Amino acid sequence: MSDIAVKRPKIVSSQAEERVDWKKRKAEIKEAKKQRKEAKLIKQLEKQKEEEAAKKQRLEQTQDKKGRDYTVSVALPGSVLDNAQSTELRTYLAGQIARACVVFCVDEIIVFDEQGEDVKSVEGEFKGVGKKGQACIQLARILQYLECPQYLRKWFFPKHQDLQYAGSDFKLSTVYKTSPFLSPRQGLLNPLDSPHHMRIDEESEYREGIVLDRPMKQGKGSFVNCGMRKEVRIDKQLQPGLRVTVQLNQTQNPESKLFKGVVVAPHVPRTNGGLYWGYSVRLASCLSAVFTESPYKEGYDLTIGTSERGSNVDQTSLSPFKHLLVVFGGLQGLEASVDSDQNLDVTDPGVLFDLYLNTCPSQGSRTIRTEEAILISMACLRQKITAAFSHVSNGSVQN
Amino acid sequence: MSDIAVKRPKIVSSQAEERVDWKKRKAEIKEAKKQRKEAKLIKQLEKQKEEEAAKKQRLEQTQDKKGRDYTVSVALPGSVLDNAQSTELRTYLAGQIARACVVFCVDEIIVFDEQGEDVKSVEGEFKGVGKKGQACIQLARILQYLECPQYLRKWFFPKHQDLQYAGSDFKLSTVYKTSPFLSPRQGLLNPLDSPHHMRIDEESEYREGIVLDRPMKQGKGSFVNCGMRKEVRIDKQLQPGLRVTVQLNQTQNPESKLFKGVVVAPHVPRTNGGLYWGYSVRLASCLSAVFTESPYKEGYDLTIGTSERGSNVDQTSLSPFKHLLVVFGGLQGLEASVDSDQNLDVTDPGVLFDLYLNTCPSQGSRTIRTEEAILISMACLRQKITAAFSHVSNGSVQN
Ligand SMILES: C[S@@+](CC[C@H](N)C(=O)[O-])C[C@H]1O[C@@H](n2cnc3c(N)ncnc32)[C@H](O)[C@@H]1O
Ligand SMILES: C[S@@+](CC[C@H](N)C(=O)[O-])C[C@H]1O[C@@H](n2cnc3c(N)ncnc32)[C@H](O)[C@@H]1O
Repeated sequence: MSDIAVKRPKIVSSQAEERVDWKKRKAEIKEAKKQRKEAKLIKQLEKQKEEEAAKKQRLEQTQDKKGRDYTVSVALPGSVLDNAQSTELRTYLAGQIARACVVFCVDEIIVFDEQGEDVKSVEGEFKGVGKKGQACIQLARILQYLECPQYLRKWFFPKHQDLQYAGSDFKLSTVYKTSPFLSPRQGLLNPLDSPHHMRIDEESEYREGIVLDRPMKQGKGSFVNCGMRKEVRIDKQLQPGLRVTVQLNQTQNPESKLFKGVVVAPHVPRTNGGLYWGYSVRLASCLSAVFTESPYKEGYDLTIGTSERGSNVDQTSLSPFKHLLVVFGGLQGLEASVDSDQNLDVTDPGVLFDLYLNTCPSQGSRTIRTEEAILISMACLRQKITAAFSHVSNGSVQN
Repeated sequence: MSDIAVKRPKIVSSQAEERVDWKKRKAEIKEAKKQRKEAKLIKQLEKQKEEEAAKKQRLEQTQDKKGRDYTVSVALPGSVLDNAQSTELRTYLAGQIARACVVFCVDEIIVFDEQGEDVKSVEGEFKGVGKKGQACIQLARILQYLECPQYLRKWFFPKHQDLQYAGSDFKLSTVYKTSPFLSPRQGLLNPLDSPHHMRIDEESEYREGIVLDRPMKQGKGSFVNCGMRKEVRIDKQLQPGLRVTVQLNQTQNPESKLFKGVVVAPHVPRTNGGLYWGYSVRLASCLSAVFTESPYKEGYDLTIGTSERGSNVDQTSLSPFKHLLVVFGGLQGLEASVDSDQNLDVTDPGVLFDLYLNTCPSQGSRTIRTEEAILISMACLRQKITAAFSHVSNGSVQN
């Protein structure tokens, strides 16, 4: 638009070549000034309209949202990694768990300690995936790494780029040069392919991004890298390095050097957009902490334990819930997790849950592995969750 | 019993020490002879009774069987192996598929070719698991290997014991000495832990065995190694090296050097005993051969194709069937399998099946891997199969 404002006087001056009429000239200059002023006003007005449209759009989406309000959490002991037969398979197993949770739109994965290692945070130096030990932190880290959109990994997992999940006890050079089994880059982790892992030119209302360390005038917002060809200017001024969920304005100026958007809460793509938006990862120092340290104010209102000694899932139906928690055991089942938890005075894990379910009656193998049990159990529960909530919406339609 | 028959005369002779009455002595000897004869008769009678009891037992079980008559077959393209990122993971993937099928009591696995390699038999030299190519035969071989009870593997898979799934293109010494990822013995394959994989002292009515190359009188049967502390003498004379299913007699003489049993058809543990008894493996040269080369005379009477483009599994129920076939696609879905099959003139795989099902509506990942899809789909179908057949038995109870 500034181009247009500059061009107009030029046309006027070319028309004025014939004779210099100073009175006319003055009037023309005045007119041009007026036009520039008007153009500026129009520009401001358009910007205002654009912003209002975006606001309205967001409001409409909030009211007429296609998303879900409920959440699904899955908990499992980090010790499952120690069940893997090699460092490579240890990493692969973590990837299987991540994928199983993503396929069933799990919003939170809780890795609990059943061996008393008592780790509460994944902060600090990550030493890579070793053969044994540190299972909780290793599982949590790989889960976080996989959940992070590829274009953000270089910022949030710089160490990983170097280590590539080689065990900390192996020297990189030895491993990569002699082993035909390790591809040089995280090649053995299958991608999650979830909706929030966008490709560069993919169009999407929401995107995950990182706030850039780029100066902007006070009150003018921040720049965010959302893995697109242009950066995104958001409304709020936020701390550089923060991972944010950005809602992009529906109308963008294709000629602008930036996209525009606003920062929203991470749950908005799920609750308003109807999109699965990955999972958060939480460490729990014991089984009971899985329940007591819930990130949801109200805690979990439906808890399910899984075991071949549970009751038959086929004879169970679910009622609607806000926050579902499904808990899996490790090699020795949930009994072992209960045993090692000093806060728990029970021996039968069944008493800890609203439901204690056998999700694979008449199993043809003496034992089902945890990574298999997640897929099997969530496949059974998916159908029951759908039924629980379709009942609700059917009900409200009928009312 | 021969011990008892020998001891008795001794006691008699010790009583006779006082005075030698030849008349009495003669009578005593006569009596002893009579007793020996009687004992022999009793022994024969007992043997006869024992055999009759065993026969009756088997007959009763046939009439009052707790098993199932229906079968479940799963078909998938061997090409899925080429999706694995390393030789180790190629083997691991085959193991995942075997376990998924065992968990859901699958009776037949069909590996079909969607790349026109046209292999019809797993006979011949097995060259180990390479990085690419020969996917069908490799998958079939690993599936067969895993299905075979551990104690029979040294006979049926002598090559495997040496190769241990190292790729044929690697020299064994290099691989094992430099790679920290390969355990020296098939350590990366998770055991199937199915009921027919018996431990040495486990008691079971049925056992898988191999007919031994040990001479026995014509018409006296054969010796079978069933992985127990004693060998089993079966009624029939069979070719050495044959794998057989043996039903052990319910009463065994603990002092005998042999167990006794009879050879039964491999389906008997399932149909009569109510046990899951592993799967058979079949190679098909193309997708259509999966249907046309069924080992069941009547063919498959319920066929299900799986795809994210199928109809919602939640809105489907199953009717009872005799032989169910569930077909999975590879990396490119069943469309690719249909495309490469010169016998098929269709483009939409859906038309080939009685049901074409999406078994994971609203999946949170853009794509579900075949090994995941087997667990997810069979978890959905297990419940529907149970419902189909419990309906039948409920019905007959109510009649
Ligand atoms: C290897 S299994 C545990 C086996 C252990 N021996 C036991 O008896 O519980 C690991 C986990 O898988 C899950 N699991 C295994 N079989 C299951 C079934 N039939 N139903 C539900 N969950 C199962 C449970 O969460 C279990 O703790
Ligand atoms: C990697 S997927 C194939 C993906 C392929 N792009 C397609 O569109 O079909 C491999 C196989 O997993 C199974 N599968 C994947 N998603 C499924 C779903 N939602 N329902 C049923 N089967 C599914 C199908 O058998 C499919 O052929």
